[in-house]
Amino acid sequence: MRLRNKPWAKEAIAKYPHIVIPNPKECRGKWNEVFGNKNPIHIEVGTGKGRFVTGMGKQHQDINYIGIEKYTSVLLTAMERVVESECTNVKLLNEDVVELLEFFDEGEIERVYINFTDPWPKNRHEKRRLTYKGFLCQYETVMKSGGEVHLKTDNQGLFEYSIESFSSYGMKVQNVSLHLHKSNFEGNVMTEYEQKFSEKGMPIYRCEAVFR
Amino acid sequence: MRLRNKPWAKEAIAKYPHIVIPNPKECRGKWNEVFGNKNPIHIEVGTGKGRFVTGMGKQHQDINYIGIEKYTSVLLTAMERVVESECTNVKLLNEDVVELLEFFDEGEIERVYINFTDPWPKNRHEKRRLTYKGFLCQYETVMKSGGEVHLKTDNQGLFEYSIESFSSYGMKVQNVSLHLHKSNFEGNVMTEYEQKFSEKGMPIYRCEAVFR
Repeated sequence: MRLRNKPWAKEAIAKYPHIVIPNPKECRGKWNEVFGNKNPIHIEVGTGKGRFVTGMGKQHQDINYIGIEKYTSVLLTAMERVVESECTNVKLLNEDVVELLEFFDEGEIERVYINFTDPWPKNRHEKRRLTYKGFLCQYETVMKSGGEVHLKTDNQGLFEYSIESFSSYGMKVQNVSLHLHKSNFEGNVMTEYEQKFSEKGMPIYRCEAVFR
Repeated sequence: MRLRNKPWAKEAIAKYPHIVIPNPKECRGKWNEVFGNKNPIHIEVGTGKGRFVTGMGKQHQDINYIGIEKYTSVLLTAMERVVESECTNVKLLNEDVVELLEFFDEGEIERVYINFTDPWPKNRHEKRRLTYKGFLCQYETVMKSGGEVHLKTDNQGLFEYSIESFSSYGMKVQNVSLHLHKSNFEGNVMTEYEQKFSEKGMPIYRCEAVFR
Protein backbone atom coordinates (compact mmCIF):
# COMPACT_ATOMS: atom_id res chain seq x y z
CA MET A 1 0.00 0.00 0.00
CA ARG A 2 1.20 3.49 -0.80
CA LEU A 3 1.84 5.24 2.48
CA ARG A 4 1.54 8.99 2.38
CA ASN A 5 2.51 10.78 5.51
CA LYS A 6 -0.43 12.84 6.71
CA PRO A 7 0.67 14.83 9.76
CA TRP A 8 -2.91 15.91 10.38
CA ALA A 9 -4.20 12.33 10.53
CA LYS A 10 -3.74 11.79 14.27
CA GLU A 11 -5.59 14.98 15.04
CA ALA A 12 -8.38 14.16 12.61
CA ILE A 13 -9.11 10.69 14.01
CA ALA A 14 -9.06 12.06 17.56
CA LYS A 15 -12.24 13.94 16.66
CA TYR A 16 -14.14 10.67 16.19
CA PRO A 17 -13.47 8.69 19.38
CA HIS A 18 -16.75 6.81 18.97
CA ILE A 19 -15.36 5.36 15.71
CA VAL A 20 -11.60 5.15 16.24
CA ILE A 21 -11.51 3.91 19.81
CA PRO A 22 -8.72 5.81 21.60
CA ASN A 23 -8.27 3.43 24.56
CA PRO A 24 -8.90 -0.12 23.30
CA LYS A 25 -7.00 -1.75 26.19
CA GLU A 26 -9.60 -0.38 28.55
CA CYS A 27 -12.35 -1.92 26.44
CA ARG A 28 -10.94 -5.44 26.83
CA GLY A 29 -13.78 -7.72 27.89
CA LYS A 30 -16.31 -4.90 27.53
CA TRP A 31 -16.75 -4.56 23.76
CA ASN A 32 -20.44 -5.38 24.00
CA GLU A 33 -20.82 -2.28 26.17
CA VAL A 34 -18.91 -0.21 23.61
CA PHE A 35 -21.29 -1.33 20.88
CA GLY A 36 -24.29 -1.18 23.17
CA ASN A 37 -25.52 -4.64 22.24
CA LYS A 38 -24.60 -8.32 22.51
CA ASN A 39 -24.13 -9.00 18.80
CA PRO A 40 -21.16 -11.16 17.69
CA ILE A 41 -17.90 -9.31 17.10
CA HIS A 42 -15.82 -9.88 13.97
CA ILE A 43 -12.44 -8.23 13.53
CA GLU A 44 -10.34 -7.46 10.49
CA VAL A 45 -6.59 -7.46 11.08
CA GLY A 46 -4.86 -4.98 8.78
CA THR A 47 -8.01 -3.19 7.74
CA GLY A 48 -6.30 -0.70 5.39
CA LYS A 49 -8.60 1.90 3.94
CA GLY A 50 -11.62 0.17 5.41
CA ARG A 51 -13.65 -0.64 2.34
CA PHE A 52 -14.17 -4.25 3.43
CA VAL A 53 -15.08 -3.62 7.05
CA THR A 54 -17.49 -0.81 6.10
CA GLY A 55 -19.07 -2.90 3.34
CA MET A 56 -19.55 -5.80 5.73
CA GLY A 57 -20.97 -3.46 8.36
CA LYS A 58 -23.61 -2.27 5.92
CA GLN A 59 -24.39 -5.81 4.75
CA HIS A 60 -24.62 -7.34 8.23
CA GLN A 61 -26.18 -4.91 10.67
CA ASP A 62 -26.45 -7.64 13.32
CA ILE A 63 -22.68 -8.11 13.51
CA ASN A 64 -20.22 -5.74 15.17
CA TYR A 65 -17.02 -5.10 13.24
CA ILE A 66 -13.66 -3.86 14.46
CA GLY A 67 -10.97 -3.02 11.93
CA ILE A 68 -7.38 -2.83 13.17
CA GLU A 69 -4.81 -0.81 11.25
CA LYS A 70 -1.50 0.47 12.55
CA TYR A 71 -0.85 3.14 9.91
CA THR A 72 -2.67 6.29 10.98
CA SER A 73 -2.66 7.91 7.54
CA VAL A 74 -4.32 4.79 6.05
CA LEU A 75 -6.79 4.44 8.91
CA LEU A 76 -7.90 8.02 8.30
CA THR A 77 -9.47 6.96 5.00
CA ALA A 78 -11.16 4.03 6.75
CA MET A 79 -12.54 6.41 9.32
CA GLU A 80 -13.94 8.72 6.67
CA ARG A 81 -15.66 5.72 5.09
CA VAL A 82 -17.24 4.70 8.38
CA VAL A 83 -18.43 8.26 9.03
CA GLU A 84 -19.94 8.41 5.57
CA SER A 85 -21.63 5.01 5.91
CA GLU A 86 -23.33 6.07 9.17
CA CYS A 87 -22.79 2.50 10.39
CA THR A 88 -22.78 2.31 14.16
CA ASN A 89 -21.64 -1.32 14.12
CA VAL A 90 -18.14 -0.57 12.77
CA LYS A 91 -15.30 0.58 15.01
CA LEU A 92 -11.62 1.05 14.22
CA LEU A 93 -8.41 0.65 16.19
CA ASN A 94 -5.24 2.51 15.26
CA GLU A 95 -3.12 -0.27 16.71
CA ASP A 96 -0.67 -3.05 15.92
CA VAL A 97 -2.14 -6.57 15.67
CA VAL A 98 0.76 -8.00 17.68
CA GLU A 99 -0.93 -6.56 20.76
CA LEU A 100 -4.25 -8.32 20.05
CA LEU A 101 -4.46 -10.00 23.44
CA GLU A 102 -4.40 -6.62 25.13
CA PHE A 103 -7.50 -5.48 23.29
CA PHE A 104 -9.71 -8.55 23.57
CA ASP A 105 -10.59 -10.97 26.30
CA GLU A 106 -10.68 -14.74 25.80
CA GLY A 107 -13.60 -15.78 23.63
CA GLU A 108 -14.70 -12.19 23.00
CA ILE A 109 -14.42 -12.49 19.20
CA GLU A 110 -16.22 -14.82 16.80
CA ARG A 111 -14.37 -14.30 13.55
CA VAL A 112 -11.12 -12.88 12.18
CA TYR A 113 -10.80 -11.53 8.63
CA ILE A 114 -7.42 -11.26 6.93
CA ASN A 115 -7.58 -9.52 3.57
CA PHE A 116 -4.66 -8.92 1.21
CA THR A 117 -2.17 -8.83 4.01
CA ASP A 118 1.53 -8.22 3.43
CA PRO A 119 2.91 -11.60 2.26
CA TRP A 120 6.40 -11.08 3.73
CA PRO A 121 7.84 -13.47 1.15
CA LYS A 122 11.28 -13.89 2.69
CA ASN A 123 11.67 -16.88 4.98
CA ARG A 124 13.27 -14.80 7.70
CA HIS A 125 10.11 -12.66 7.85
CA GLU A 126 7.73 -15.61 8.32
CA LYS A 127 6.85 -14.49 11.85
CA ARG A 128 5.40 -11.25 10.50
CA ARG A 129 2.82 -12.98 8.30
CA LEU A 130 -0.64 -12.68 9.82
CA THR A 131 -1.21 -16.42 9.28
CA TYR A 132 1.95 -17.40 11.17
CA LYS A 133 1.27 -19.76 14.08
CA GLY A 134 2.16 -17.02 16.58
CA PHE A 135 -0.80 -15.00 15.30
CA LEU A 136 -3.07 -18.08 15.01
CA CYS A 137 -2.40 -18.68 18.69
CA GLN A 138 -3.57 -15.16 19.50
CA TYR A 139 -6.67 -15.47 17.32
CA GLU A 140 -7.53 -18.76 19.03
CA THR A 141 -7.24 -17.15 22.43
CA VAL A 142 -9.61 -14.27 21.69
CA MET A 143 -12.12 -16.44 19.78
CA LYS A 144 -14.90 -18.66 20.93
CA SER A 145 -14.43 -22.37 20.14
CA GLY A 146 -15.29 -23.00 16.51
CA GLY A 147 -14.06 -19.50 15.67
CA GLU A 148 -13.19 -18.93 12.03
CA VAL A 149 -10.39 -17.16 10.23
CA HIS A 150 -11.37 -15.96 6.74
CA LEU A 151 -8.50 -15.24 4.38
CA LYS A 152 -8.42 -13.53 1.00
CA THR A 153 -5.25 -12.79 -0.93
CA ASP A 154 -3.91 -12.38 -4.44
CA ASN A 155 -0.54 -13.72 -3.33
CA GLN A 156 0.03 -17.34 -4.33
CA GLY A 157 2.93 -17.90 -1.96
CA LEU A 158 1.07 -16.49 1.02
CA PHE A 159 -1.97 -18.61 0.21
CA GLU A 160 0.08 -21.81 -0.03
CA TYR A 161 1.85 -20.92 3.21
CA SER A 162 -1.39 -20.09 4.98
CA ILE A 163 -3.10 -23.38 4.13
CA GLU A 164 -0.05 -25.21 5.45
CA SER A 165 0.07 -23.04 8.57
CA PHE A 166 -3.66 -23.46 9.34
CA SER A 167 -3.41 -27.20 8.79
CA SER A 168 -0.24 -27.58 10.80
CA TYR A 169 -1.92 -25.71 13.66
CA GLY A 170 -4.70 -28.30 13.61
CA MET A 171 -7.35 -26.05 12.06
CA LYS A 172 -9.90 -27.35 9.60
CA VAL A 173 -9.57 -25.66 6.21
CA GLN A 174 -12.84 -25.22 4.33
CA ASN A 175 -14.46 -23.39 1.41
CA VAL A 176 -11.21 -23.16 -0.53
CA SER A 177 -11.43 -21.07 -3.68
CA LEU A 178 -8.53 -20.64 -6.07
CA HIS A 179 -10.42 -18.11 -8.19
CA LEU A 180 -12.96 -16.39 -5.98
CA HIS A 181 -14.51 -14.23 -8.68
CA LYS A 182 -15.22 -17.26 -10.84
CA SER A 183 -16.65 -19.25 -7.94
CA ASN A 184 -20.22 -19.29 -6.69
CA PHE A 185 -19.36 -17.53 -3.45
CA GLU A 186 -22.08 -15.06 -2.51
CA GLY A 187 -22.01 -11.80 -0.59
CA ASN A 188 -18.35 -11.03 -1.31
CA VAL A 189 -17.29 -7.54 -0.28
CA MET A 190 -14.27 -6.41 -2.27
CA THR A 191 -11.31 -4.53 -0.84
CA GLU A 192 -9.47 -1.85 -2.82
CA TYR A 193 -6.72 -4.32 -3.69
CA GLU A 194 -9.16 -6.99 -4.68
CA GLN A 195 -10.91 -4.76 -7.18
CA LYS A 196 -7.59 -3.67 -8.70
CA PHE A 197 -6.16 -7.17 -9.00
CA SER A 198 -9.33 -8.86 -10.19
CA GLU A 199 -9.79 -6.20 -12.89
CA LYS A 200 -6.44 -7.35 -14.26
CA GLY A 201 -7.85 -10.88 -14.44
CA MET A 202 -5.66 -12.15 -11.62
CA PRO A 203 -7.14 -14.89 -9.43
CA ILE A 204 -8.16 -14.08 -5.87
CA TYR A 205 -7.54 -16.92 -3.42
CA ARG A 206 -9.85 -17.46 -0.47
CA CYS A 207 -10.30 -19.97 2.31
CA GLU A 208 -11.68 -20.34 5.79
CA ALA A 209 -9.95 -22.04 8.68
CA VAL A 210 -11.76 -23.21 11.81
CA PHE A 211 -10.27 -23.81 15.24
CA ARG A 212 -11.23 -27.32 16.39
CA MET B 1 -8.33 -40.41 -21.04
CA ARG B 2 -9.06 -41.81 -24.47
CA LEU B 3 -10.09 -45.40 -24.04
CA ARG B 4 -9.49 -47.61 -27.04
CA ASN B 5 -10.79 -51.08 -26.73
CA LYS B 6 -7.93 -53.51 -27.21
CA PRO B 7 -9.32 -57.02 -27.15
CA TRP B 8 -5.83 -58.45 -27.08
CA ALA B 9 -4.87 -56.52 -23.95
CA LYS B 10 -5.96 -59.12 -21.41
CA GLU B 11 -4.00 -61.82 -23.17
CA ALA B 12 -0.95 -59.61 -23.52
CA ILE B 13 -0.71 -58.68 -19.86
CA ALA B 14 -1.22 -62.31 -18.84
CA LYS B 15 2.20 -62.98 -20.35
CA TYR B 16 3.89 -60.80 -17.74
CA PRO B 17 2.55 -62.08 -14.40
CA HIS B 18 5.73 -60.90 -12.63
CA ILE B 19 4.76 -57.32 -13.61
CA VAL B 20 0.95 -57.32 -13.72
CA ILE B 21 0.19 -59.39 -10.65
CA PRO B 22 -2.69 -61.73 -11.56
CA ASN B 23 -3.80 -62.61 -8.01
CA PRO B 24 -3.25 -59.54 -5.82
CA LYS B 25 -5.70 -60.67 -3.14
CA GLU B 26 -3.40 -63.60 -2.40
CA CYS B 27 -0.48 -61.20 -1.98
CA ARG B 28 -2.22 -59.28 0.80
CA GLY B 29 0.23 -58.96 3.71
CA LYS B 30 3.00 -60.56 1.64
CA TRP B 31 4.06 -57.82 -0.77
CA ASN B 32 7.58 -57.77 0.61
CA GLU B 33 7.86 -61.41 -0.50
CA VAL B 34 6.57 -60.52 -3.97
CA PHE B 35 9.26 -57.83 -4.30
CA GLY B 36 11.86 -60.00 -2.58
CA ASN B 37 12.94 -57.23 -0.19
CA LYS B 38 11.67 -55.14 2.72
CA ASN B 39 11.75 -51.78 1.01
CA PRO B 40 8.86 -49.36 1.59
CA ILE B 41 5.88 -49.74 -0.73
CA HIS B 42 4.28 -46.77 -2.46
CA ILE B 43 1.16 -47.15 -4.56
CA GLU B 44 -0.37 -45.04 -7.29
CA VAL B 45 -4.15 -45.21 -7.53
CA GLY B 46 -5.29 -44.75 -11.13
CA THR B 47 -1.88 -45.27 -12.68
CA GLY B 48 -3.01 -44.77 -16.30
CA LYS B 49 -0.29 -45.36 -18.85
CA GLY B 50 2.31 -45.72 -16.14
CA ARG B 51 4.73 -42.96 -16.99
CA PHE B 52 4.78 -41.67 -13.41
CA VAL B 53 5.15 -45.00 -11.64
CA THR B 54 7.89 -46.14 -14.02
CA GLY B 55 9.74 -42.84 -13.76
CA MET B 56 9.57 -43.00 -9.96
CA GLY B 57 10.76 -46.61 -10.04
CA LYS B 58 13.84 -45.59 -12.00
CA GLN B 59 14.52 -42.60 -9.76
CA HIS B 60 14.06 -44.43 -6.46
CA GLN B 61 15.41 -47.97 -6.70
CA ASP B 62 15.03 -48.42 -2.93
CA ILE B 63 11.24 -47.99 -3.05
CA ASN B 64 8.76 -50.55 -4.34
CA TYR B 65 5.96 -49.17 -6.49
CA ILE B 66 2.57 -50.63 -7.29
CA GLY B 67 0.38 -48.94 -9.88
CA ILE B 68 -3.33 -49.73 -9.86
CA GLU B 69 -5.41 -49.21 -13.00
CA LYS B 70 -8.76 -50.75 -13.79
CA TYR B 71 -8.78 -50.21 -17.55
CA THR B 72 -6.91 -53.10 -19.13
CA SER B 73 -6.25 -51.36 -22.44
CA VAL B 74 -4.62 -48.45 -20.59
CA LEU B 75 -2.68 -50.69 -18.25
CA LEU B 76 -1.20 -52.45 -21.27
CA THR B 77 0.79 -49.31 -22.10
CA ALA B 78 1.95 -49.07 -18.49
CA MET B 79 3.09 -52.67 -18.65
CA GLU B 80 5.06 -52.07 -21.83
CA ARG B 81 6.76 -49.14 -20.10
CA VAL B 82 7.72 -51.24 -17.09
CA VAL B 83 9.07 -54.02 -19.36
CA GLU B 84 11.13 -51.47 -21.27
CA SER B 85 12.47 -49.82 -18.10
CA GLU B 86 13.70 -53.18 -16.76
CA CYS B 87 12.68 -51.95 -13.30
CA THR B 88 12.05 -54.84 -10.92
CA ASN B 89 10.67 -52.52 -8.25
CA VAL B 90 7.50 -51.64 -10.19
CA LYS B 91 4.42 -53.87 -10.23
CA LEU B 92 0.96 -53.24 -11.64
CA LEU B 93 -2.55 -54.31 -10.67
CA ASN B 94 -5.36 -54.44 -13.20
CA GLU B 95 -7.90 -53.76 -10.49
CA ASP B 96 -10.40 -51.25 -9.13
CA VAL B 97 -9.19 -49.05 -6.27
CA VAL B 98 -12.49 -49.53 -4.41
CA GLU B 99 -11.20 -52.98 -3.47
CA LEU B 100 -7.97 -51.63 -1.97
CA LEU B 101 -8.43 -53.31 1.41
CA GLU B 102 -8.50 -56.69 -0.31
CA PHE B 103 -5.04 -56.17 -1.79
CA PHE B 104 -3.16 -54.69 1.15
CA ASP B 105 -2.92 -55.47 4.83
CA GLU B 106 -3.05 -52.81 7.55
CA GLY B 107 0.08 -50.69 7.55
CA GLU B 108 1.57 -52.43 4.51
CA ILE B 109 1.86 -49.20 2.47
CA GLU B 110 3.83 -46.04 3.20
CA ARG B 111 2.56 -43.65 0.58
CA VAL B 112 -0.29 -43.17 -1.89
CA TYR B 113 0.05 -41.16 -5.09
CA ILE B 114 -2.99 -39.69 -6.83
CA ASN B 115 -2.16 -38.09 -10.17
CA PHE B 116 -4.60 -36.36 -12.51
CA THR B 117 -7.48 -38.43 -11.31
CA ASP B 118 -10.98 -38.04 -12.72
CA PRO B 119 -12.42 -34.95 -10.95
CA TRP B 120 -16.05 -36.16 -11.06
CA PRO B 121 -17.25 -32.55 -10.90
CA LYS B 122 -20.92 -33.25 -10.22
CA ASN B 123 -21.90 -33.23 -6.55
CA ARG B 124 -23.73 -36.50 -6.86
CA HIS B 125 -20.49 -38.18 -7.96
CA GLU B 126 -18.45 -36.96 -4.99
CA LYS B 127 -18.07 -40.51 -3.69
CA ARG B 128 -16.16 -41.50 -6.79
CA ARG B 129 -13.40 -38.93 -6.29
CA LEU B 130 -10.21 -40.59 -5.10
CA THR B 131 -9.86 -37.96 -2.37
CA TYR B 132 -13.36 -38.61 -0.98
CA LYS B 133 -13.34 -39.54 2.70
CA GLY B 134 -14.39 -43.10 1.88
CA PHE B 135 -11.11 -43.53 0.00
CA LEU B 136 -9.08 -41.65 2.62
CA CYS B 137 -10.37 -44.13 5.15
CA GLN B 138 -9.07 -47.00 3.03
CA TYR B 139 -5.69 -45.33 2.48
CA GLU B 140 -5.39 -44.76 6.22
CA THR B 141 -6.09 -48.41 6.91
CA VAL B 142 -3.40 -49.75 4.57
CA MET B 143 -0.80 -47.14 5.57
CA LYS B 144 1.55 -46.92 8.47
CA SER B 145 0.93 -43.99 10.85
CA GLY B 146 2.34 -40.81 9.35
CA GLY B 147 1.53 -42.18 5.90
CA GLU B 148 1.29 -39.58 3.16
CA VAL B 149 -1.05 -39.00 0.25
CA HIS B 150 0.56 -37.02 -2.60
CA LEU B 151 -1.83 -35.35 -5.01
CA LYS B 152 -1.23 -33.70 -8.37
CA THR B 153 -3.99 -32.36 -10.60
CA ASP B 154 -4.71 -29.72 -13.19
CA ASN B 155 -8.31 -29.50 -12.01
CA GLN B 156 -8.98 -26.49 -9.81
CA GLY B 157 -12.27 -27.81 -8.45
CA LEU B 158 -10.80 -31.17 -7.51
CA PHE B 159 -7.85 -29.49 -5.83
CA GLU B 160 -10.07 -27.20 -3.76
CA TYR B 161 -12.26 -30.16 -2.84
CA SER B 162 -9.29 -32.34 -1.94
CA ILE B 163 -7.72 -29.80 0.44
CA GLU B 164 -11.07 -29.50 2.19
CA SER B 165 -11.53 -33.27 2.28
CA PHE B 166 -8.01 -33.93 3.66
CA SER B 167 -8.47 -31.21 6.27
CA SER B 168 -11.94 -32.33 7.24
CA TYR B 169 -10.60 -35.86 7.71
CA GLY B 170 -8.06 -34.46 10.17
CA MET B 171 -5.02 -34.83 7.90
CA LYS B 172 -2.23 -32.29 7.89
CA VAL B 173 -1.89 -30.59 4.49
CA GLN B 174 1.67 -29.61 3.57
CA ASN B 175 3.85 -28.54 0.65
CA VAL B 176 1.00 -26.89 -1.19
CA SER B 177 1.88 -25.67 -4.67
CA LEU B 178 -0.56 -23.79 -6.88
CA HIS B 179 1.84 -23.78 -9.82
CA LEU B 180 4.12 -26.79 -9.50
CA HIS B 181 6.24 -26.09 -12.55
CA LYS B 182 7.05 -22.58 -11.32
CA SER B 183 7.84 -23.79 -7.80
CA ASN B 184 11.16 -25.04 -6.47
CA PHE B 185 9.92 -28.63 -6.10
CA GLU B 186 12.65 -31.07 -7.10
CA GLY B 187 12.52 -34.56 -8.56
CA ASN B 188 9.09 -34.16 -10.15
CA VAL B 189 8.17 -37.01 -12.49
CA MET B 190 5.61 -35.89 -15.04
CA THR B 191 2.61 -37.90 -16.14
CA GLU B 192 1.32 -37.81 -19.72
CA TYR B 193 -1.44 -35.41 -18.72
CA GLU B 194 0.91 -33.20 -16.80
CA GLN B 195 3.21 -32.71 -19.77
CA LYS B 196 0.28 -31.91 -22.02
CA PHE B 197 -1.36 -29.42 -19.64
CA SER B 198 1.80 -27.71 -18.53
CA GLU B 199 2.91 -27.21 -22.13
CA LYS B 200 -0.26 -25.16 -22.54
CA GLY B 201 0.88 -23.00 -19.63
CA MET B 202 -1.83 -24.31 -17.32
CA PRO B 203 -0.94 -24.50 -13.64
CA ILE B 204 -0.45 -27.89 -12.02
CA TYR B 205 -1.67 -28.08 -8.43
CA ARG B 206 0.09 -30.28 -5.90
CA CYS B 207 -0.09 -31.01 -2.20
CA GLU B 208 0.69 -33.66 0.36
CA ALA B 209 -1.62 -34.79 3.14
CA VAL B 210 -0.41 -36.69 6.19
CA PHE B 211 -2.47 -38.93 8.46
CA ARG B 212 -2.01 -37.78 12.07
